[in-house]
Amino acid sequence: MNDMHDMTGLPEIDGARLWSDLMTMGAIGGTARGGSFRPALSGADAEARNLFAHWAREAGLALSVDRVGNMFARREGRDPSLPPLMIGSHLDTQMPGGKFDGVLGVLAGLAVVRALNAAGLETQRAIEIVNWTNEEGARFQPGLMGSAVFAGLLPLDEVLARTDRKGLSVRDELAATGYAGPVPAGGREVHKYLELHIEQGPELEKNGAVIGAVTNSSWGCSGFIEIRGENGHSQTAAMSRRRNALVGAAKLILAIEEIGAAQEPAGMVSATVVENWPNNRVNIPHLAKLSYVVVHETAEGRQAIIDRIEEAARRIAEDSHLDIETTTAHFRDRLDFSPDLLDLTVKTAEGRGLSVMTLPTLTAHDALSIHFVAPVAIVFVPCRDGISHSELEWCEPEHATAGARVLLDMALAAANEG
Amino acid sequence: MNDMHDMTGLPEIDGARLWSDLMTMGAIGGTARGGSFRPALSGADAEARNLFAHWAREAGLALSVDRVGNMFARREGRDPSLPPLMIGSHLDTQMPGGKFDGVLGVLAGLAVVRALNAAGLETQRAIEIVNWTNEEGARFQPGLMGSAVFAGLLPLDEVLARTDRKGLSVRDELAATGYAGPVPAGGREVHKYLELHIEQGPELEKNGAVIGAVTNSSWGCSGFIEIRGENGHSQTAAMSRRRNALVGAAKLILAIEEIGAAQEPAGMVSATVVENWPNNRVNIPHLAKLSYVVVHETAEGRQAIIDRIEEAARRIAEDSHLDIETTTAHFRDRLDFSPDLLDLTVKTAEGRGLSVMTLPTLTAHDALSIHFVAPVAIVFVPCRDGISHSELEWCEPEHATAGARVLLDMALAAANEG
Repeated sequence: MNDMHDMTGLPEIDGARLWSDLMTMGAIGGTARGGSFRPALSGADAEARNLFAHWAREAGLALSVDRVGNMFARREGRDPSLPPLMIGSHLDTQMPGGKFDGVLGVLAGLAVVRALNAAGLETQRAIEIVNWTNEEGARFQPGLMGSAVFAGLLPLDEVLARTDRKGLSVRDELAATGYAGPVPAGGREVHKYLELHIEQGPELEKNGAVIGAVTNSSWGCSGFIEIRGENGHSQTAAMSRRRNALVGAAKLILAIEEIGAAQEPAGMVSATVVENWPNNRVNIPHLAKLSYVVVHETAEGRQAIIDRIEEAARRIAEDSHLDIETTTAHFRDRLDFSPDLLDLTVKTAEGRGLSVMTLPTLTAHDALSIHFVAPVAIVFVPCRDGISHSELEWCEPEHATAGARVLLDMALAAANEG
Repeated sequence: MNDMHDMTGLPEIDGARLWSDLMTMGAIGGTARGGSFRPALSGADAEARNLFAHWAREAGLALSVDRVGNMFARREGRDPSLPPLMIGSHLDTQMPGGKFDGVLGVLAGLAVVRALNAAGLETQRAIEIVNWTNEEGARFQPGLMGSAVFAGLLPLDEVLARTDRKGLSVRDELAATGYAGPVPAGGREVHKYLELHIEQGPELEKNGAVIGAVTNSSWGCSGFIEIRGENGHSQTAAMSRRRNALVGAAKLILAIEEIGAAQEPAGMVSATVVENWPNNRVNIPHLAKLSYVVVHETAEGRQAIIDRIEEAARRIAEDSHLDIETTTAHFRDRLDFSPDLLDLTVKTAEGRGLSVMTLPTLTAHDALSIHFVAPVAIVFVPCRDGISHSELEWCEPEHATAGARVLLDMALAAANEG
């Protein structure tokens, strides 16, 4: 006898199967150090999608794919006319990323459905397990792409025209992978949306909690810096007279790191992207570009970070005789998630005897898009040392199972609402 | 009457034509700020080559192209069996570069031949004006490519397989531009080689000299640094515990700049190339690479720079919890150029009433390759503020003419040697 049913006959998560699925999925695009390399709409992402589709059919689910490649695996409810409960996240990863970020939320959804199937339980509403296209934004930008189009936050045509660094478009890569679906993206009602995710931070671990009920998102934005110097010969031009754009970029990278460290843990910022022209050894760089993400628990904190970076840019421009321009974009304001679902998360975890805490999320999830069309709950489980977007990302098997169990109970409650 | 002949009937450089040619050539791939963008074997480089071929034929020269795309425009001598005198440099530029670096040496060669033609003067030996392929190394590496293959320093097949950042090979781009010539590269005797070039440094200008007779090259090498940290999420990972490879790179860029500035003017070094992985805003960079060129007047100075960079790398690795590996390559030792030709340069300049000084070159020229198969002379003229590899690069018209006049007299002497 396996643990699929407990003695009372209630549906239960098969933790061993969920773990096996996570490891199998992680092997697609698997890296030597234990991570996964599955940028959106790559060959590896297509393989991951195919495997999800296979498992979904195996579980008796009806698969549909929309025009931006979002995959919906539907378990019909007693009343097919009611808006479905959705459970989901994403199967794409950073380059490289880990085995759990996103994947847990999708595969735990399958585990929920399998548990209902094994118990022979119907629900009033359909349950749809969703794999959103390109949550990570690693290959195509922006991230949260599929969920944003579904929620009407981004126009489909604009998104389809986005290209990766090789110039390949979302449109072409959807076609190449076979995931340019026929179904219109969004435009239909969603009853509620549940997303199980590793925390990606250290709070649950630090507090000895197994379940995190996420209250709200944080204040974020992206920043961009252009540093303009003057080109010249790196072996002959007098060093004291150079206007080296890369030297300005280096000073800014360090200044931004200091500004971030001073805000921790309420907020952070790191310059993580650099481009440099002409990037040839014999040339003094005449143009460098940096970009970064600002995140903070408060609007004032976000603004303070932006202000300090601009201050640093002015100081470095003057000291280094460079022209430096800073801009900001992609402002995300705090979202407060459904109090009812937050309450349900806490009560469900307590009912399962799991230690639970409430906390905000510093980073974005697909639930931030779906929040605009339906009540959402984000449920966190711990990840080791708060590490994610990393080959070292790790979630203990019992935490994955615990998260799926909370999801199962929440799904049963929400899918049986009239 | 133009200045093509002076009153004595001796051959003379047409300075106005030379200037006009420089401006015409500079307009090919011309940039808004007055520079040129003609990476080797680009469409613009092909146009520049076609124009050179046109002017060469117009001057009655016989054109040949070798297998690495080097172009030779030959004015036959009285004894065709004698090895030719060569005059040359290159028409490719940095991205972007200026109107004079390389171009002056090729077009001044044409001006010399036109002067001989106009005066009806024959020479004992043939004179060949050469455009060497890919001196700059901006698109394909290494630089001095064509001259190095000609001198037997690099195997042809290895060079033809080199690719640019888009993966296009030298072989394919030679074919695409029509400059995959039939003539074997090198393997023939060269009597002597003369290269007129802008100084690319400030010494002539500073000393009020119009002609520089170049004594020797400097001690150089390339350096490469790999900085390995750990990937992670830029919005959630504790800042104090990050191992951010780009932060290590930034510290090294500034350390290297300081090391370079401390050596000036005897030597220099700047980190000018950076690559960063995964270079996405939401990821802590786990790998960054830097590279740079070291140049110094002495072997000890070169070594001291290398040592100090390694020292800085060790210190930064420890402070920032990063793995940093430094390597060096492409060592160039000092070359002492032909004393006879040096003497001829000085005497010729003096004979023309031009102020002349001797000086080393910090940077490489095609003459450094040809030095291994024939005596070479490098003749410098001033460039404004020592600026080169820059859209602001500038050579006064009278200096271009003065250089070409010295080249003319030297060519007449060398091409009439038995």
